[in-house]
Amino acid sequence: MGLVVMKFGGSSVADADKMKKVAARVIDKKKQGNRVVVVVSAPGDMTDDLIAMCEKITATPDDRELDMLLSTGEQVSIALLSMAIKKMGQSVISLTGPQAGIYADTTHTKARIIKIIPTKILKELSRRKIVVVAGFQGINPNDDIATLGRGGSDLTAVALAAALKADFCEIYTDVAGVYTTDPRVVADARKIHYISYEEMLEMAGTGAQVMQGRSIEVGKKNKVDIHVRSTFSPADGTIITSEEAITSRRGAMEEVLLTAVTFDRNQVKLSVVDLPDIPGIAAKMFGALAVGGINVDMIIQSAAQDKRNDISFTVSRSDLKKTQKVLGKIRKDLKAANIIYDKDVAKVSIIGVGMKSHPGVAATMFTVLADNKINIEMISTSEIKISCIIDNAAVNKAVTALHAAFGLNKRQ
Amino acid sequence: MGLVVMKFGGSSVADADKMKKVAARVIDKKKQGNRVVVVVSAPGDMTDDLIAMCEKITATPDDRELDMLLSTGEQVSIALLSMAIKKMGQSVISLTGPQAGIYADTTHTKARIIKIIPTKILKELSRRKIVVVAGFQGINPNDDIATLGRGGSDLTAVALAAALKADFCEIYTDVAGVYTTDPRVVADARKIHYISYEEMLEMAGTGAQVMQGRSIEVGKKNKVDIHVRSTFSPADGTIITSEEAITSRRGAMEEVLLTAVTFDRNQVKLSVVDLPDIPGIAAKMFGALAVGGINVDMIIQSAAQDKRNDISFTVSRSDLKKTQKVLGKIRKDLKAANIIYDKDVAKVSIIGVGMKSHPGVAATMFTVLADNKINIEMISTSEIKISCIIDNAAVNKAVTALHAAFGLNKRQ
Repeated sequence: MGLVVMKFGGSSVADADKMKKVAARVIDKKKQGNRVVVVVSAPGDMTDDLIAMCEKITATPDDRELDMLLSTGEQVSIALLSMAIKKMGQSVISLTGPQAGIYADTTHTKARIIKIIPTKILKELSRRKIVVVAGFQGINPNDDIATLGRGGSDLTAVALAAALKADFCEIYTDVAGVYTTDPRVVADARKIHYISYEEMLEMAGTGAQVMQGRSIEVGKKNKVDIHVRSTFSPADGTIITSEEAITSRRGAMEEVLLTAVTFDRNQVKLSVVDLPDIPGIAAKMFGALAVGGINVDMIIQSAAQDKRNDISFTVSRSDLKKTQKVLGKIRKDLKAANIIYDKDVAKVSIIGVGMKSHPGVAATMFTVLADNKINIEMISTSEIKISCIIDNAAVNKAVTALHAAFGLNKRQ
Repeated sequence: MGLVVMKFGGSSVADADKMKKVAARVIDKKKQGNRVVVVVSAPGDMTDDLIAMCEKITATPDDRELDMLLSTGEQVSIALLSMAIKKMGQSVISLTGPQAGIYADTTHTKARIIKIIPTKILKELSRRKIVVVAGFQGINPNDDIATLGRGGSDLTAVALAAALKADFCEIYTDVAGVYTTDPRVVADARKIHYISYEEMLEMAGTGAQVMQGRSIEVGKKNKVDIHVRSTFSPADGTIITSEEAITSRRGAMEEVLLTAVTFDRNQVKLSVVDLPDIPGIAAKMFGALAVGGINVDMIIQSAAQDKRNDISFTVSRSDLKKTQKVLGKIRKDLKAANIIYDKDVAKVSIIGVGMKSHPGVAATMFTVLADNKINIEMISTSEIKISCIIDNAAVNKAVTALHAAFGLNKRQ
């Protein structure tokens, strides 16, 4: 008998009919002979509704009280889903994050899970109950409710799977799995059957919005196989697992260079022009940005000419104003001639563990882009990823061309 | 420095503007030099909305899960009210029922409070914080959330006031206090300044809907003075206190016979006609009704003729169908000729500790009704209350006449 953690997002439990479908799916899993723990998010728009209520009171809510407010959404979901499961004749119990033994730190609204003590869950499982746990929340050392931030329910599911030594962690979502690229851009994008934690982390960091990086890291650290699949279809989705597991599976198959092509249109490029070429300038600039809470993605520094040079970097579009404010304050200090920005850029990335042993991959990428007359403005690489900043208008062309050039549309 | 428990009902926290008004009122109380604990209900229609969501899933929800669901309403209120108070510059913390140390029994949806351990509340008060507690909920011995049933937030407030030895328990509501009768029926009804627990209990039992009996009983048992007053006016309301306290206050004033006239239109009279006059018949009948969960209010049995007699009794209008079903089942057994019911009845009551020492009060009531050509169908009395079942159409006339006859419109 296996132990499975099933996680359903807000769109899967948005109304009574969807709740009932989820309940049926959970019961199926139980009837296949498994012990089942279900993790759910708040129904549909409830979190947004709660935030709207909060905004009518204050623009700067206390973080502890915001967690007190937002955690009710998941509590509504676990109660309703448990009722639906019970109505279908199965024994079930709902548990809030604190009741489930999920201990978090004191960083309200984006707490980290410190530990899980699943005594209560195991007791209820041993009574042959389906256990429905509220995602996104835990109890902190002050006995307060703390929420886990964006993607928090995925994190709850993966961490619970680790603590319970579950055989599988299934993340049910409104897409059928992880694709070689966005099917809305490239029609012959294919579902990936197996992907490594490392590749998935790179995908999350380069624009693919299937899962937050934190959950994948917890999965990797604890060797939890994560199965991303559709709530509304019985078909298998994508299994996120270790590189070794994938290599042994792929062994008999053709050699795989790339796993996916991703893109991120949420990028702005800033250039600080005509800086003095002296030590400490970059440290001063990026130090100020870090203090301002701005996440800098790619950085290039031009070769110095006449003891002056330029530094360019990218940030999220939503951080542009904040970035301009920080740079405006330190510009005199930096002795920079000018600060310019370009909102019409995007990042295109290719990802694959295969590129570790194939040094020609980067050259192929640059050639494909050049053949398509796409200018590369910035480049950054990791062991299993190459990213290029290009003109936003050229994204679809670039993604389509790269997807085809690396044969991602062909493979089984 | 005093300690005050302030309780605000759902209509007082129905939207952001009302929340802000409540916050201002709470802060005023603090600035007057008090330590302040606030108890709140779920905002406006939220409980109804949650029940509607539940009904789309199942008509027979599990009680534990229903409590899990419904307790979120108060949690939303405490978070939002705390944000509003903080926004106005005061230090504040919200606590769920479990966090506040409110321990309940395992009777889900209508749990009793077993004990209160207010350690956390006292600690936060000592840090000069306003403490906002979720009404209507506690934690039970299984570490589950349990709700306290109708009027549960009042109960939380009064029980907390007892546990904290508060100087006052203030129940804020949308009426200005307790009146000598319903001002919608009798225009010159007056606000009662002081009323005893016993009188208030009789009022709750005879149709006045200011507070549930349970809260008043807890107040009486623990000698908590309860101040019922308007959320939207600074004027004093009605203080519910001990008979001795009232007697000593009233001593210098004119002698008071009556405190209030109440009525209850939610009554149905049933008559089981032509029963054999043998021992055990009434026991069999009312035993069956009790097993069916039906609360019987007034009972009369006619004098036997020819070894046959009739039994009449009243139940809540909402229990009529259930009552008919139970009686239908045992009718043959009872050898009753017929069962008839009359939906056009109502109960009119007069209440006052003064009637203990004035045996003429009942006679005056019957005379007033007779003078107004109102027929009395049933009578029931307690030491401080007389109730009569009359024609529903005559209620306004009866209440107006009794209110005037006992001088309730005249007193200061």
